[in-house]
Amino acid sequence: MTQESFVLGIDLGGTKIRTAVVDRTGGILAHDHRETAASEGPQAVIGRMLDAARGVMAQAGVARWQVAAVGVGAPGPLDIEAGVALSPPNLPGWDRLPLRQLIEEGLGIPTTLENDGNAAALGEHRFGAGRGVDHMIYVTASTGIGGGLILGGELYHGAAGMAGEIGHTIILPDGPLCGCGNRGCLEALASGSAIARRAREIVAHGVPTRIADLAGGDLGLITARLVADAAREGDVEAEAILSEAMDYLGVGLASLVNLFNPALVVIGGGLAHIGERLFGPVRRAIKRRAFPAQAQAVRVVPAELGDHVGVLGAAAVAWWETPARPPCAGGGSTAA
Amino acid sequence: MTQESFVLGIDLGGTKIRTAVVDRTGGILAHDHRETAASEGPQAVIGRMLDAARGVMAQAGVARWQVAAVGVGAPGPLDIEAGVALSPPNLPGWDRLPLRQLIEEGLGIPTTLENDGNAAALGEHRFGAGRGVDHMIYVTASTGIGGGLILGGELYHGAAGMAGEIGHTIILPDGPLCGCGNRGCLEALASGSAIARRAREIVAHGVPTRIADLAGGDLGLITARLVADAAREGDVEAEAILSEAMDYLGVGLASLVNLFNPALVVIGGGLAHIGERLFGPVRRAIKRRAFPAQAQAVRVVPAELGDHVGVLGAAAVAWWETPARPPCAGGGSTAA
Repeated sequence: MTQESFVLGIDLGGTKIRTAVVDRTGGILAHDHRETAASEGPQAVIGRMLDAARGVMAQAGVARWQVAAVGVGAPGPLDIEAGVALSPPNLPGWDRLPLRQLIEEGLGIPTTLENDGNAAALGEHRFGAGRGVDHMIYVTASTGIGGGLILGGELYHGAAGMAGEIGHTIILPDGPLCGCGNRGCLEALASGSAIARRAREIVAHGVPTRIADLAGGDLGLITARLVADAAREGDVEAEAILSEAMDYLGVGLASLVNLFNPALVVIGGGLAHIGERLFGPVRRAIKRRAFPAQAQAVRVVPAELGDHVGVLGAAAVAWWETPARPPCAGGGSTAA
Repeated sequence: MTQESFVLGIDLGGTKIRTAVVDRTGGILAHDHRETAASEGPQAVIGRMLDAARGVMAQAGVARWQVAAVGVGAPGPLDIEAGVALSPPNLPGWDRLPLRQLIEEGLGIPTTLENDGNAAALGEHRFGAGRGVDHMIYVTASTGIGGGLILGGELYHGAAGMAGEIGHTIILPDGPLCGCGNRGCLEALASGSAIARRAREIVAHGVPTRIADLAGGDLGLITARLVADAAREGDVEAEAILSEAMDYLGVGLASLVNLFNPALVVIGGGLAHIGERLFGPVRRAIKRRAFPAQAQAVRVVPAELGDHVGVLGAAAVAWWETPARPPCAGGGSTAA
């Protein structure tokens, strides 16, 4: 039987589509990177995904029959079993869109759809910081907070494929309103948006801070990255904002350590670039708040896959989450 | 090969030891119920456990060779892999006590040790409210708050057997001090002890409430049960205390629903007897705070095993958590 040796990973984001041909070890043979241009609607976006997929296959010199599966990581909410996007907030017009079917039919290759946080978790587990670890929590801290759970060596989906909403565990019951409609979620307290919102409040209040200078007084230009820059310059307000947010992240992760008794917590996403200002408070919170035995059993480390986590996660989904299917009629000789 | 048809379940608590001979369907053939008298030290307690075990076997007319395994549910912290109790707070003097080995050698039957919350979760899953459900969270709300996680049809242990500490997820980072040393754990806000503590504070403050009358003015007599009695009589303060505590329980469970996407949440323990005053706020919090799809996917129900949850949980551990062991030398014919 001919060996199918590659998969396609497609990382569909609200602003970018990343596509790659990936081998079993996470090696990238060819990749593509283009704008989502979500405002043009689902048909145009799907067209770009298919174009990109055909492009990377051609670039890598890989034929369709050599591609075992396609994995698509997409923003939630999704019905992963049906392969359907259920109106993701940053993909307007995608209401009950049969994303899996459209890609599968467009390319003629079995396709699996997965939540982007889960895909990234599986990517770090198979190709990154979590290799060989059976119990791992992956957290992505950027504009929002997402992640996924690797339990017993496998991605945990829960009863209906929606498990792993780490960003929507409640840290402060009467805290700030979250995008999900609840109050005090981890995402509302410790994400890049939460940090930027807090900084805008302080600047709008007239508190003297380097944040205002760096933004040239324009509240709309204040981002978490800018707050981090101000903190690096020693601005006390910026430091306080970051430190409060990262303390909350630590609180959330301490709870997860008591709950899951993981061997590893992997933290990725743009916010992880602030380094010790994130990892310090998180490690301290776990040490101070989780049970000593659990706190000692867990390592907290940065993600390893960087910008490739999305496509490599989608590729891992293709390799390990695509259901076994009956052999194709006329698709080569049978084994055994 | 002769079929071994029964197990022994031993539920070791801080005040009571319950022991039973149990069949594969959760039927109890004989049971025993005696004081732990923990103050007499581990040797005396182990002696009583062995006595009770022999007693129920004799009472059921079951010989040692008919008992496949013994399951022991005990308060944490435990090293379940080593079978060792690591100084549980309500069993003074049990520091690194090889509990599993002492029972196994005393009875001559393979023995498995499990955290009592996990054992109860497995009991409700195999014999109670969770039968046939693959993804279930079990919460026991009584003096403390414990529980266990059934994920993919199996008890989830985490990396070192310590997963499932539902009572020690953080609900209010600057909240009241918890017995574990952390602040604002679910147990510090929603357990029977938390309710009693809050009631004592209010009574000590001179707030007029039926709680004070029922306790005859003696702060030491105030328990969660007494607060529930006062609430049932329409006392506004008692109602407020219970409702605040149960709102926190709801917050904690809403987070778990977003995290695990369970099909079922089972709530047992003494506090569950307050019925709608617990289940109402919990269901409302999940509906209000969890993602709509997750909230719709989960049922919240009372536990079914009542006072037997401990022994039946320990029996379930014996049936399903005891590692397969090599056939005994001379222990009958070999199969296949």
